[in-house]
Amino acid sequence: MKKQSVLVLSGPNLNMLGRREPEIYGEDTLESIHGEIRALANKLELDVTCSQHNSEGELIDWFEKAADEFGGVLINAGAYSHYSYALRDAIVAAGVPCIEIHMSNVYGREGFRQKSVIAPVCHGCITGFGKQSYLLALRAIAHIVKDK
Amino acid sequence: MKKQSVLVLSGPNLNMLGRREPEIYGEDTLESIHGEIRALANKLELDVTCSQHNSEGELIDWFEKAADEFGGVLINAGAYSHYSYALRDAIVAAGVPCIEIHMSNVYGREGFRQKSVIAPVCHGCITGFGKQSYLLALRAIAHIVKDK
Amino acid sequence: MKKQSVLVLSGPNLNMLGRREPEIYGEDTLESIHGEIRALANKLELDVTCSQHNSEGELIDWFEKAADEFGGVLINAGAYSHYSYALRDAIVAAGVPCIEIHMSNVYGREGFRQKSVIAPVCHGCITGFGKQSYLLALRAIAHIVKDK
Amino acid sequence: MKKQSVLVLSGPNLNMLGRREPEIYGEDTLESIHGEIRALANKLELDVTCSQHNSEGELIDWFEKAADEFGGVLINAGAYSHYSYALRDAIVAAGVPCIEIHMSNVYGREGFRQKSVIAPVCHGCITGFGKQSYLLALRAIAHIVKDK
Amino acid sequence: MKKQSVLVLSGPNLNMLGRREPEIYGEDTLESIHGEIRALANKLELDVTCSQHNSEGELIDWFEKAADEFGGVLINAGAYSHYSYALRDAIVAAGVPCIEIHMSNVYGREGFRQKSVIAPVCHGCITGFGKQSYLLALRAIAHIVKDK
Amino acid sequence: MKKQSVLVLSGPNLNMLGRREPEIYGEDTLESIHGEIRALANKLELDVTCSQHNSEGELIDWFEKAADEFGGVLINAGAYSHYSYALRDAIVAAGVPCIEIHMSNVYGREGFRQKSVIAPVCHGCITGFGKQSYLLALRAIAHIVKDK
Amino acid sequence: MKKQSVLVLSGPNLNMLGRREPEIYGEDTLESIHGEIRALANKLELDVTCSQHNSEGELIDWFEKAADEFGGVLINAGAYSHYSYALRDAIVAAGVPCIEIHMSNVYGREGFRQKSVIAPVCHGCITGFGKQSYLLALRAIAHIVKDK
Amino acid sequence: MKKQSVLVLSGPNLNMLGRREPEIYGEDTLESIHGEIRALANKLELDVTCSQHNSEGELIDWFEKAADEFGGVLINAGAYSHYSYALRDAIVAAGVPCIEIHMSNVYGREGFRQKSVIAPVCHGCITGFGKQSYLLALRAIAHIVKDK
Amino acid sequence: MKKQSVLVLSGPNLNMLGRREPEIYGEDTLESIHGEIRALANKLELDVTCSQHNSEGELIDWFEKAADEFGGVLINAGAYSHYSYALRDAIVAAGVPCIEIHMSNVYGREGFRQKSVIAPVCHGCITGFGKQSYLLALRAIAHIVKDK
Amino acid sequence: MKKQSVLVLSGPNLNMLGRREPEIYGEDTLESIHGEIRALANKLELDVTCSQHNSEGELIDWFEKAADEFGGVLINAGAYSHYSYALRDAIVAAGVPCIEIHMSNVYGREGFRQKSVIAPVCHGCITGFGKQSYLLALRAIAHIVKDK
Amino acid sequence: MKKQSVLVLSGPNLNMLGRREPEIYGEDTLESIHGEIRALANKLELDVTCSQHNSEGELIDWFEKAADEFGGVLINAGAYSHYSYALRDAIVAAGVPCIEIHMSNVYGREGFRQKSVIAPVCHGCITGFGKQSYLLALRAIAHIVKDK
Amino acid sequence: MKKQSVLVLSGPNLNMLGRREPEIYGEDTLESIHGEIRALANKLELDVTCSQHNSEGELIDWFEKAADEFGGVLINAGAYSHYSYALRDAIVAAGVPCIEIHMSNVYGREGFRQKSVIAPVCHGCITGFGKQSYLLALRAIAHIVKDK
Repeated sequence: MKKQSVLVLSGPNLNMLGRREPEIYGEDTLESIHGEIRALANKLELDVTCSQHNSEGELIDWFEKAADEFGGVLINAGAYSHYSYALRDAIVAAGVPCIEIHMSNVYGREGFRQKSVIAPVCHGCITGFGKQSYLLALRAIAHIVKDK
Repeated sequence: MKKQSVLVLSGPNLNMLGRREPEIYGEDTLESIHGEIRALANKLELDVTCSQHNSEGELIDWFEKAADEFGGVLINAGAYSHYSYALRDAIVAAGVPCIEIHMSNVYGREGFRQKSVIAPVCHGCITGFGKQSYLLALRAIAHIVKDK
Repeated sequence: MKKQSVLVLSGPNLNMLGRREPEIYGEDTLESIHGEIRALANKLELDVTCSQHNSEGELIDWFEKAADEFGGVLINAGAYSHYSYALRDAIVAAGVPCIEIHMSNVYGREGFRQKSVIAPVCHGCITGFGKQSYLLALRAIAHIVKDK
Repeated sequence: MKKQSVLVLSGPNLNMLGRREPEIYGEDTLESIHGEIRALANKLELDVTCSQHNSEGELIDWFEKAADEFGGVLINAGAYSHYSYALRDAIVAAGVPCIEIHMSNVYGREGFRQKSVIAPVCHGCITGFGKQSYLLALRAIAHIVKDK
Repeated sequence: MKKQSVLVLSGPNLNMLGRREPEIYGEDTLESIHGEIRALANKLELDVTCSQHNSEGELIDWFEKAADEFGGVLINAGAYSHYSYALRDAIVAAGVPCIEIHMSNVYGREGFRQKSVIAPVCHGCITGFGKQSYLLALRAIAHIVKDK
Repeated sequence: MKKQSVLVLSGPNLNMLGRREPEIYGEDTLESIHGEIRALANKLELDVTCSQHNSEGELIDWFEKAADEFGGVLINAGAYSHYSYALRDAIVAAGVPCIEIHMSNVYGREGFRQKSVIAPVCHGCITGFGKQSYLLALRAIAHIVKDK
Repeated sequence: MKKQSVLVLSGPNLNMLGRREPEIYGEDTLESIHGEIRALANKLELDVTCSQHNSEGELIDWFEKAADEFGGVLINAGAYSHYSYALRDAIVAAGVPCIEIHMSNVYGREGFRQKSVIAPVCHGCITGFGKQSYLLALRAIAHIVKDK
Repeated sequence: MKKQSVLVLSGPNLNMLGRREPEIYGEDTLESIHGEIRALANKLELDVTCSQHNSEGELIDWFEKAADEFGGVLINAGAYSHYSYALRDAIVAAGVPCIEIHMSNVYGREGFRQKSVIAPVCHGCITGFGKQSYLLALRAIAHIVKDK
Repeated sequence: MKKQSVLVLSGPNLNMLGRREPEIYGEDTLESIHGEIRALANKLELDVTCSQHNSEGELIDWFEKAADEFGGVLINAGAYSHYSYALRDAIVAAGVPCIEIHMSNVYGREGFRQKSVIAPVCHGCITGFGKQSYLLALRAIAHIVKDK
Repeated sequence: MKKQSVLVLSGPNLNMLGRREPEIYGEDTLESIHGEIRALANKLELDVTCSQHNSEGELIDWFEKAADEFGGVLINAGAYSHYSYALRDAIVAAGVPCIEIHMSNVYGREGFRQKSVIAPVCHGCITGFGKQSYLLALRAIAHIVKDK
Repeated sequence: MKKQSVLVLSGPNLNMLGRREPEIYGEDTLESIHGEIRALANKLELDVTCSQHNSEGELIDWFEKAADEFGGVLINAGAYSHYSYALRDAIVAAGVPCIEIHMSNVYGREGFRQKSVIAPVCHGCITGFGKQSYLLALRAIAHIVKDK
Repeated sequence: MKKQSVLVLSGPNLNMLGRREPEIYGEDTLESIHGEIRALANKLELDVTCSQHNSEGELIDWFEKAADEFGGVLINAGAYSHYSYALRDAIVAAGVPCIEIHMSNVYGREGFRQKSVIAPVCHGCITGFGKQSYLLALRAIAHIVKDK
């Protein structure tokens, strides 16, 4: 059933997780985080699809799919959060609830990271909990897609 | 044991929950949310203390207590989030991990709500999930206080 | 009858009226102004309650009462007008018509006084007429509470 | 006697009152409001002259007259409030007390409406009470012109 | 002959037309609009090529082609209009007249939509007429490419 | 029939067309452009009235007429576009669809020309095509007034 | 001979000179200043025409005349200096050298007076010398119109 | 005698001194600093009263007392320095000389700490000397209260 | 007699006049301009001293002299106009009337040239007339020093 | 050996070099510049890989490679320099020294070109020397990779 | 012994003290203040060297000396405080503790005086106490240089 | 021969190199860097003159010389880069190609260092390579002066 399917999108540079600045992002790789997401999804009785892209255009392509195939989206848009109005339009166009995720506490870092252009069109935001940001967001989207 | 104790603080006007703008904040009262928090805390084997104050000074007083008696703090500072640098200093002074909560998606509302002066000194932020914001934050703090 | 009750709130430093900068605020004390308010209220067949507080939190507490017990509020929030988003939220939460008052013409003074964060959620504003600001506002609220 | 004469000026588009956006400005025409102003003026023992102009230059011409023939001015400058520094200079040049009026609560509308360039040189402002804005201002100017 | 060829480019999310926010963008799909463009082009004796891309890089690639193969470009850059300086450079590099198109009246929407970084290097802009924006722009480019 | 009547307004300095900066505005006089507008209007079966004014107040006066006598308005407000909030209010008050026109590409000129205060309340904008801006706008308004 | 003719334009409120704020603008009336201008013009062998208008539109009308009938313009645009982009366009359209004049030192007054939107398109500016501002500017324009 | 009495006020979180961020604020507690203040006051022949409050309202209450009972005030307003316009008004209303104190060099810390809204109405400021900031300020106020 | 003495100061790079950007500054050298100044001074019965310095400190030194030895100062501060608050203080400290001069029309050049930090404390400004700026200013200061 | 390998990346529109605005970018094609880079690299005993991409995502992909395979990166990010925070993150994630290059002097062009979001995380910047910018940067990176 | 030596630097226009604006700066000359500084230094067992310069470059020269010969610096940089980043660099380069002094309360004066570019790199600031600012700062530096 | 002569100017505090913040600027003294510059100049067949000044005025004096005696200038203006518009004018007035140098990567440091007011009038900029910044710039100027 469509509503039970959740898309977990990760944006630019998140494929570098584990190798990149572990003092900020922790030591888990994106693959291992995807594994934990799938495990929790199982427990919550959700289907999840996990995907990572460096390209803004490919992330937008996925939202087109989301409109038809998913009941909710978790997105860690990385730095695109701060300027990609195209991604923002994609979220609105998709018309499914979307949760913004950041692993680090972006509010305690450089000034440009304190503005998200996609937050206003998301359902909610979870920021600063490392891989737990993904897992908490999965619990949050579960409530939302099941209530609909 | 101290680390297992969590303080849940709510700021100005949150005593009006349920009566106030239900289309934004939902229909639960703060009391019923406190009830759900306590229930989940039980399950997560945490002690919780819940308190609400309209006064900036009283919220600051609680952080003094937090320094000595709690292992973590969840704070929904309401509108004080947007200008109370005194609260920010209190969070730093307390020296215990603190999670910022908002029930509504503040990023989709008036411009002034898009800046939190306390976020940079919090561990993380959970925004936009109604009462679930409190409950997800409790799960998040559980990970943090138990890891310490 | 509830609708006929009006709350007149004065904020920080207004207890200093008469002693404080008479060239700006005039020579009447707040007590004598409260007396004139009560006299006019009598004539307009309104019940009035007058109260002054230096504390932001206590002013917010009164709005909780206002939700239940008053048909309208006049507020001279003093300097809180310029930054208390918490008071703004309280006005909205109370859900009764509120009129913002200033005794001096704040627009002709320091830059920071030219922005009121509560004005957008008030019914209207009366600024610059000394104690007449209170009395004109009482006439204005009379029209509003009686029309409801 | 000069001091008892009051000029009531209305600026651009106010001739459209009643036809224009009744949800914002109410259903009275400017003519009927002028009628109510004259009636109240009678009661307050004031002479009033009411005039409306779309042209900034003609409004300025009236302030030249005001310097010689009126003891006070009420001005609803419409959108000119937000940028007409020439009108501001005219108010100062006239040298008679002037009260700024708006029928709608401009502070709750578009950003540009929240700045009045004439307010700093007016005696006071009354904003948000529909036609009552004019009538309350007439009461206010009565106090002022009679005290002089 | 080269000058008679016109490129019609559409940017991110425009493939969602018809499905996406019909109250803003209307109910026609991009395919049907392309059909109407081709029909009018026929009448105006122009060759048209229509293409849509979510990727900023691919839109830039097309401008390289435009330099050699087209006499004019119509571009609805969607949200890229607001920040893609790379697209701006591409328009300049191509060296052929380019017209910016928006279907909705971007000036009446969110603040960020009111700035186009590509407009200064376009020949002109047509905004707010739904699918007619494309068709009017085709008429406009016809005048330009035929005058050269 | 009213809906078929279209008003074409030109603002300050446009009477200087042909004499003024031909490298920016072209060599046609406003009279000859009015002639072309009338010819196209004939073809599109519209009545047009063309009028030019240097005075902000007179342009506003025409919008009062537009409310009663025209089904649509084309306005080239010249420099008033950039600051005349009074004209903006007039467009809203008139309540008929209005299209903003500029002959030059204002986005490629001085900074102050890049902001139009009337654009947010117009139906759409056509900018940068010389006299074709008027003619394209006439085609656009034809679609709109005939659809109503 | 055309070049020898100079237009001296004064803008809003300058008809109030002598009556208006003498501590800022001095005690001479505009008429007496016009007299001194004519006397000096005689000496410098220039024809002068002096004119004052409160209306922005009428000032613009004069620039149309200036294009045909005058070799230079002195303009004291009063407060229009600070926002009238329409006047700026008129100066450019006229195509004759124009000198901006202010009687008071506008740079030492309110912030808004420190920006002139017409200065960038004038030949030069003379500010702060009371009626001497006009007379010095007349000497300046004499050099310019005779050099051409 | 009143003039010889000095009030030493400390604002939010200063009760945490010694426990809180010793690398910034040093290791003395507020109590021990109060002790040193009293000792120096003795030497300077001043009466001092020392008081600390987390609540903005209570700090304002003290200024009401200061108006009647103290000849000078030292205030370390903590974070309230940066936004409490209500405190600023209280200082002015009290009408006694007031010196602003900060223990850390606020100018070398976060951006928000670089603006004090109370500094413009204080007699002077002493910033960056740890507990010596209090002691130097006591010497400074001694000069001032004894000169009066 | 002191009042008849006028100091003419020129700031950084003005020794390059004639060699430097003649299309902006003309072809006269500073020496030849000094010659014309002396000739006119003679005619106006003034003593003049002309001096040029690249160093901000030396220009300030001259104002110390001006306090004692000159009745007025003409200053072309070059680029120091735009940021030398030290020069501004020197002008105020000197306490003699000072006129700011620019040879080019600074308002029509780069943005940074449009702000003079010394203009607010000068008597007046003359800008844009090449060497005539000096000569007109000499006439202006003659009126001022003779009136004192 | 890894350290001796250098990646030379060029961003959007640089494939147009030689054809595009030769007055700004010179007449060499990117291919010929790559040739000169390889020749100099040979002399400096470095391996170089040269690559050009219009797509932000593909540029980011290369930085992932750079982390493993290159000792240094030269990047001419074109317009992405001004807004691609994603590229900035990629540079940091790669963890190898990176030099920013621009062929034109971006500081002398449009305002938006004066801010580079990647400069703060680069080792250094070389701007304004045409193809020499690449060659000088190669010399610079040689020093850096050999010192490590 | 080096640490006991203190440099007291005064910047532009401070040689005018006593003659310059006594209502702001008092009636003491810099010489008499230097005398009082020396007297207090004696008492505190410090060597002091006092020096005043109008030139930014000479003030910077002194910091080079300070690096070698002084244990602390007091600087009243006058207007250079507000923009001399070169002085700021000099303070850092000297590497000895430096205290910023102002005699007037700069926070209560013009806007530009409210920003000090040197404060962030000073040890502390003392502002608003006339000549006492120097004397209090001498006491403060005594504590610092003796603690080292 | 003139063209072969290059001036290498260093601004404020650069005489402190080696002693000052070696973690930012390295351990070489300016003298040793001058030595390496001379050595490379020899190799490149250039005459070089190296000079350092703390005074803005003396740096400007050198540009006057540069106009006559040098074919190119390298300038490390230190902090003057960020505000010395007088230096900027000097560079333009000199009329010889000038390259801006910084040893540290100014873009990664304090905000004020990210704006150079001289960069727009320089030929190019080299930033962040320590002493190599000078040497690379020498190579760059060699290409330029030899091409002329």
